Amino acid sequence: MAVYTEVGDDELIEFLAEFDIGEALSCKGIAEGIENSNYLLTTDAGNYILTLYEKRVDPGDLPFFLGLMDHLAAAGVLCPTPIHGRDGQALRQLCGRPAAIVTFLAGMWPRRITPEHCAELGRAMADLHLAGDGFEETRPNSLSVASWRSLLEQSGAGADSVRPGLADELSRELSRIEAEWPDDLPSGVIHADLFPDNVFFRHDHLSGLIDFYFACNDAFAYDLAICLNAWCFEPDRSFNITKARRMLTAYRKVRDFSDDELVALPLLARGSAMRFLLTRLYDWLNTPQDALVTRKDPLEYYDKLRFHMGVSGPGDYGLD
Amino acid sequence: MAVYTEVGDDELIEFLAEFDIGEALSCKGIAEGIENSNYLLTTDAGNYILTLYEKRVDPGDLPFFLGLMDHLAAAGVLCPTPIHGRDGQALRQLCGRPAAIVTFLAGMWPRRITPEHCAELGRAMADLHLAGDGFEETRPNSLSVASWRSLLEQSGAGADSVRPGLADELSRELSRIEAEWPDDLPSGVIHADLFPDNVFFRHDHLSGLIDFYFACNDAFAYDLAICLNAWCFEPDRSFNITKARRMLTAYRKVRDFSDDELVALPLLARGSAMRFLLTRLYDWLNTPQDALVTRKDPLEYYDKLRFHMGVSGPGDYGLD
Repeated sequence: MAVYTEVGDDELIEFLAEFDIGEALSCKGIAEGIENSNYLLTTDAGNYILTLYEKRVDPGDLPFFLGLMDHLAAAGVLCPTPIHGRDGQALRQLCGRPAAIVTFLAGMWPRRITPEHCAELGRAMADLHLAGDGFEETRPNSLSVASWRSLLEQSGAGADSVRPGLADELSRELSRIEAEWPDDLPSGVIHADLFPDNVFFRHDHLSGLIDFYFACNDAFAYDLAICLNAWCFEPDRSFNITKARRMLTAYRKVRDFSDDELVALPLLARGSAMRFLLTRLYDWLNTPQDALVTRKDPLEYYDKLRFHMGVSGPGDYGLD
Repeated sequence: MAVYTEVGDDELIEFLAEFDIGEALSCKGIAEGIENSNYLLTTDAGNYILTLYEKRVDPGDLPFFLGLMDHLAAAGVLCPTPIHGRDGQALRQLCGRPAAIVTFLAGMWPRRITPEHCAELGRAMADLHLAGDGFEETRPNSLSVASWRSLLEQSGAGADSVRPGLADELSRELSRIEAEWPDDLPSGVIHADLFPDNVFFRHDHLSGLIDFYFACNDAFAYDLAICLNAWCFEPDRSFNITKARRMLTAYRKVRDFSDDELVALPLLARGSAMRFLLTRLYDWLNTPQDALVTRKDPLEYYDKLRFHMGVSGPGDYGLD
């Protein structure tokens, strides 16, 4: 949860004067997102999300993120659409921060994941991957394989305080991942953070994808690998092959995989588990226990990594 | 900011089935209020506030608070109105907590207080005091003079860590307040927490009063004394007599004071400053520095107390 920058009524009135969405009826900080300050803004014209970008977001990336949302929304993806001011600009300044208003999406994120949710997700992810075609701007994945060694080293001996022997074990596994990591898979714009709290549903139908602030250019199959980890494990950390099969087969009906992508999936899933393990480990070791942000257990992703290390091939994800 | 209890989509759908306000389109935790979990709930029918009552609220008080909002809204006060379920009940259970849905009020609370805001507040407070007439339930003010000695003792020597000599100084002043505290002033339902963040405005006109969870039966003039402290000091802690005059004269046009009330005002203002000083002092000493809740500087209210101790009569508040 987060609201780091408080927006005053006077500043907001002045800010909204640059837009054509009526006047503010209400503006309430919402306890979602840990990177930015998010407000649910109600105007005469309806509900919107107002975001002030805080220091963890590189301002140089904002034109990519906002331009991508414009592009995807125009291509029919159910995602927040930036509202442009009268001067055409969506990215502006408010209270000394970069800020933007985007459309409000109806729906709620699912707390209990069903196989049907996973199928809906697979379809939407494939649509997203196809819809990114033609978007001219690019952004490398700053949290891909090249960054993981440095992340691991920043946690250092702290890793062993979370689990004895973890630092060495991760270092060995990371060496294998680095050696085998593919660089020639079909690529394009991926979301890179499609966790359940970024996917809205109504009546079990997917109604929106949000939070494009990790989006980047990378292998499409890496997005699938992230979702295998984020959606297809049960709360007891067992893998649910039915959910994986539903997700992958639904995806494949919209955008078919190449054989290379299929074969690479276990490795990508190990890499994705490593990525979230390492960022959670770093946050775990560097966030005070009673801070504003809830720390996520890094060992959840250790268990997922171990699962993928034991996989013999894509068949273990339910694909023939 | 606070969201202590997370409401899942399934639980919410089941909860809303008891109401006639359509289905949930969205439900986002809002970073306001420190006592309860508040959600901005959007349904087919519009925006609402969903509140789950957390442990700092006595469940036995909830029928008073919700009944009062019903009563006041029916009398024309711009306040949240509880939404009743099909069985007539407004107070229900959600996620193991007492919970209620109330109407959403348009408006934003003012960050820079003007004399005009204070005049609007005075009128609305007088309307509120008159509108409480006929409300049958009662709730004593659990944070009135009888509770302050115990609060001071709970802070103990910690008070001197905030300001050397504070414990003794407050004890002496509290003895004077206790000795002089009136018990025969005109009384009824008061809000008891009308700080700027509980008062919404649109175009400088008051559009709503919220957060009735400290409401109680007490002297009307004590509500005025709370607002003298909460609205009529500048950020540099100097007293703004123009704001006080506007507030008190606007109030008086709707509900005239008795002479007793007028004469008691400086004492009530000292008591009100003492009350917020003591609760802030307690929170200051008992809240970890990096906790979820922002601590408020208790010495702000020490300075206000000192001001009122130097007042020679109600004329110092701008009244003849």
